[in-house]
Amino acid sequence: MDYKHFKRKIYLEDKPRAQAREEILEAFRLTPEKEEISTITALGRVTAEPIFARVSMPHYHASAMDGIAVVAESTYSAHEQNPLRLKRGGEFCYVDTGNAIPSPFNAVIMIEHVDVIDEETIEIIEPATPWQHIRPIGEDVVQEEMLFPQGHILRPADLGVLLAGQQTVIPVAKKPVVTIIPTGNELVEPGAELAPGKIIEFNGSVFAGFIKEWGGEPRLHPIVKDEPENIKAVLLEAAETSDIIVINAGSSAGSKDYTVHIIGEIGEVFTHGVAARPGKPVILGKINGKIVVGVPGYPVSAYLALEWFVRPLVCKYLQIPEPKRQTVNVKLGRRIVSSMGAEDFVRMNIGYVNGQFVANPLTRAAGVTMSYVRADGMLIVPANIIGYEQGDTAEVELLRPLEEIKNAIVFCGSHDLTIDLLSSQLKKTRTDMKIVSSHVGSMAGIMAIRKGEAHVAGIHLLDPATKEYNLSYVNKLLAGQDVILYPFLKRKQGWILPKGNPLGIESAADIARVKANYVNRQKGAGTRILLDLLLEEGNLSPEDIIGYDREMFSHLAVAAEVNGDAHGAGLGIYPAAKAMDLDFVPVADEEYDLLMTRSFYESESGQLLIAMIQSANFKAQVEKIGGYQVVENAEPKCLEVEV
Amino acid sequence: MDYKHFKRKIYLEDKPRAQAREEILEAFRLTPEKEEISTITALGRVTAEPIFARVSMPHYHASAMDGIAVVAESTYSAHEQNPLRLKRGGEFCYVDTGNAIPSPFNAVIMIEHVDVIDEETIEIIEPATPWQHIRPIGEDVVQEEMLFPQGHILRPADLGVLLAGQQTVIPVAKKPVVTIIPTGNELVEPGAELAPGKIIEFNGSVFAGFIKEWGGEPRLHPIVKDEPENIKAVLLEAAETSDIIVINAGSSAGSKDYTVHIIGEIGEVFTHGVAARPGKPVILGKINGKIVVGVPGYPVSAYLALEWFVRPLVCKYLQIPEPKRQTVNVKLGRRIVSSMGAEDFVRMNIGYVNGQFVANPLTRAAGVTMSYVRADGMLIVPANIIGYEQGDTAEVELLRPLEEIKNAIVFCGSHDLTIDLLSSQLKKTRTDMKIVSSHVGSMAGIMAIRKGEAHVAGIHLLDPATKEYNLSYVNKLLAGQDVILYPFLKRKQGWILPKGNPLGIESAADIARVKANYVNRQKGAGTRILLDLLLEEGNLSPEDIIGYDREMFSHLAVAAEVNGDAHGAGLGIYPAAKAMDLDFVPVADEEYDLLMTRSFYESESGQLLIAMIQSANFKAQVEKIGGYQVVENAEPKCLEVEV
Repeated sequence: MDYKHFKRKIYLEDKPRAQAREEILEAFRLTPEKEEISTITALGRVTAEPIFARVSMPHYHASAMDGIAVVAESTYSAHEQNPLRLKRGGEFCYVDTGNAIPSPFNAVIMIEHVDVIDEETIEIIEPATPWQHIRPIGEDVVQEEMLFPQGHILRPADLGVLLAGQQTVIPVAKKPVVTIIPTGNELVEPGAELAPGKIIEFNGSVFAGFIKEWGGEPRLHPIVKDEPENIKAVLLEAAETSDIIVINAGSSAGSKDYTVHIIGEIGEVFTHGVAARPGKPVILGKINGKIVVGVPGYPVSAYLALEWFVRPLVCKYLQIPEPKRQTVNVKLGRRIVSSMGAEDFVRMNIGYVNGQFVANPLTRAAGVTMSYVRADGMLIVPANIIGYEQGDTAEVELLRPLEEIKNAIVFCGSHDLTIDLLSSQLKKTRTDMKIVSSHVGSMAGIMAIRKGEAHVAGIHLLDPATKEYNLSYVNKLLAGQDVILYPFLKRKQGWILPKGNPLGIESAADIARVKANYVNRQKGAGTRILLDLLLEEGNLSPEDIIGYDREMFSHLAVAAEVNGDAHGAGLGIYPAAKAMDLDFVPVADEEYDLLMTRSFYESESGQLLIAMIQSANFKAQVEKIGGYQVVENAEPKCLEVEV
Repeated sequence: MDYKHFKRKIYLEDKPRAQAREEILEAFRLTPEKEEISTITALGRVTAEPIFARVSMPHYHASAMDGIAVVAESTYSAHEQNPLRLKRGGEFCYVDTGNAIPSPFNAVIMIEHVDVIDEETIEIIEPATPWQHIRPIGEDVVQEEMLFPQGHILRPADLGVLLAGQQTVIPVAKKPVVTIIPTGNELVEPGAELAPGKIIEFNGSVFAGFIKEWGGEPRLHPIVKDEPENIKAVLLEAAETSDIIVINAGSSAGSKDYTVHIIGEIGEVFTHGVAARPGKPVILGKINGKIVVGVPGYPVSAYLALEWFVRPLVCKYLQIPEPKRQTVNVKLGRRIVSSMGAEDFVRMNIGYVNGQFVANPLTRAAGVTMSYVRADGMLIVPANIIGYEQGDTAEVELLRPLEEIKNAIVFCGSHDLTIDLLSSQLKKTRTDMKIVSSHVGSMAGIMAIRKGEAHVAGIHLLDPATKEYNLSYVNKLLAGQDVILYPFLKRKQGWILPKGNPLGIESAADIARVKANYVNRQKGAGTRILLDLLLEEGNLSPEDIIGYDREMFSHLAVAAEVNGDAHGAGLGIYPAAKAMDLDFVPVADEEYDLLMTRSFYESESGQLLIAMIQSANFKAQVEKIGGYQVVENAEPKCLEVEV
């Protein structure tokens, strides 16, 4: 890298997102193209013109019943006291549902009201009225009737009326071709070997998925190296072959940011930067009449920028409205701070606890794809609001069906690998249920139960005074609340160390002595509290431990860090060390219990969860992991409730 | 057809739908199969197993900023009063966002806080803290973390984390193969020539569309003739090659009903008939271990039976929950009568008028596919309820997005062909808006405005006393209401007659004299009121007209009937006759006006509608049809409102 790039300053605009959107829609002047396709392949396609029925359905007078066709006027004398006999052929004929009514008949009598005398004769005791039980021509579809206007997205039954109306080939909107160009020297194709500094190019596949869902035709270009001439050539070619161009990365104000200059050079740039986060450093421009959208490299920024600016273009091309997400009002479990002057898109977890929707923000780091994947909804903080207080009600756009959110068991507190197993098991038994877990640590888990934001919390908190786990904390923090502490697991905590334990670590004192790079857990995590106790017992202080302030949010994250550093050390559960083939020196057998409200414990979901935990199958699976023992015949502990 | 079939009685059960569903789900014991597919093709597929990350993302310590990497501990002396110079190489290196942090560096300083002295030297005035601006290993995805449990439907961003976790090939649930067998001698393939009694086989394509949407793999079998041996052979073969079998028609209690007997003969029948309408005569059974669902022939019955019984099987196979539709509470515009002991599925039109959802039932005839296509929602009347009164509130399942319903202009009243044109034009200008029209006749249109169930009503009512159109009716029926009558069209009404007018009809008297088969319109339709006036003027009575009681609901439907009958005659507008190449004898130039509330007239939608009507483009299109003239410089008429 050449330092001189730093001399170039890039100023990002703070253009309102709505304005940028209007401008790009205005600039998108492509005439949508039509294509004629076979109706049976048209599911999900968009009609390009109004479509009219070529024939009526039925296209003849059809019997609506199984029975006989008669001339109504000739049956008027039929009566219970005066049955009327009719002869087959001239006076009646048998018809089934759907049969054409032969001339001169003009009414149908249901077979249930016909007395069959012999092969040629029937008797009736009630007259028919003209046109009874006959489906008139065009009852369903009338010839020349408009079946659909243009801009209609075809659903399964729509194909039926098109075929019924003899429209076997129909004009639909051509799918706009969206070329996706991933750029960056650091990118490698999925599956390729990884070296430090190399990143798997997966955004392109995500973009392709979104564009397909929106009705466009994605074309994913191979990775383009960060060379201006390269990028220029690819952009110019894409402008020839596509309706819309999406170029990924190269739009942060980084040192290799050629994209905006190239677009400006070979086309024009309308917008560089919008007042919305993440996704701010988007580029909107035009090259040879084709709109080009430069989306930022961080995944979440990229997906949002794509939705903000590419989706409207695809919909405009198809002449369909942009889909809107269902929204729901939620109670905010935490304070949310936003910056004035810019919209903030905050990914949220939503739980349905005690009859209300409670939402908490996920990490706001734009590089964390999982925060988008895990999100149940999106809170859009308007530009003129600096945020919300804890407990405020706010409207959230749903990223999952409401039903799925309603049926989820909200698990929080300490991280344990068996929770994933439990979740998988539960989904096998009840496909409509799942466990949504967030790793916030034991203390935060207790608080979530207290605030009614979670159904279950996993906790493992050692009381230094009593050397007992959990109960004293719950008693202190949830005094007077009707909660259940359900004994769940005994599990092994220990030092997680590089393979072969090169530094020979056996204790906290060793870690201090050899100056290992310790990887700690966040405040309130049971494992951190355990470390603090071990330090106290060893007459050590946090200052003695290098990395004491470095916080990770899960056992696996600690193990992953240790895995990358021959001088690393961490504290965590055995399976995390095992998963990454690291050394493990046991420190404590701890009790990992489940805390829940009594109302959840007694609910159908609660009982299902308990039954699952106690099943032989689950126990066997957990113990197979190693370092675990499921508590047999667990006795739920209740707090004393003040009445 | 052989009459002896009538001797066999078929008793349909009235089994509760839920019970039939439970039984069939219980009987569906196929072990779902998995297949390994490339992740980039897995959009919309369902994970067959829990999937874990193979690598962390980032898999190295990555810079979160553009800047310089340093050893934090070596910067502690930096201060505004005491700038610290660092040498490139040993003391710092330049990093871009995403770059790996080379050893021994452990912090990043943003480039904005770096003062570049020369190519080899920089200066800082603030110390760095360890690990600042570094994305730790696994910040996004941690190796061995469960990315998804089994039973997860993959969305675009999900593909991203799978690829990031180096899962380029994943196990997904195989799509269940659903063979669809259309049976019936009356069926012809779409596009084939039609003879009376022949019906286009379109249900199969609709079923295939539904099954595709639900995640199955449809295989549409060619039409099978109604021959027991034929059907038997096809069913047995399908049981070999598919996971689920759907056989269409042959399940009504009609004369050609072999299906239930065949299934019983070569397999077993669990259910024949459920207590739910339409869709009651469904057959549920099993052949050689494969579930077979016999769905009724009428389209709407068939689609419902498919949703009731085939969708749960597909979802069970995929191990996903059945999707649930969004619901909305509506005010019922009409009374809805249902039978005790059976559920009733009533297709509903829903309008959003004056801030509330108002719903009216569409025709309940199971043969009217358009009633399903046009429906905005489905009202499910439980078995133990005999219906609802007009004005009751009921919950309706939505068949369209709520947003689409909210943005629709609800048009009712008299049918006119230009309304479709208007609707198409509107959708072109505003893709998120549309006109939903129901043809109820002028009088019913006025009543809908009075009851707040529609935004606009098209009316053409001739006052016999004044010979004026519309205003006197509105004055009488909407006295005191703040409504606008907007002059819209002058249009030609006349006799619609078979090509060449073989009966030489010129007047109502001619119709009576030649005993033509007259096709009337429904009560309250302006055209029927016109006929009554013509009869009165000709000193004729309804009894003089054959077919006076035969009611059609639109001009096109009248024309379609006349088209099929050399002795036919009807009254209607010129374009309806023209559309079917029929003769037309003008009778009256009538005024077709638009009635709307002032609040709608003044709303954005209302003004948009008016602007569209007055546009030169729309006028030109209407006048091109023939028989029309758009009123120029129309002056909206207001009623006198009592204040």
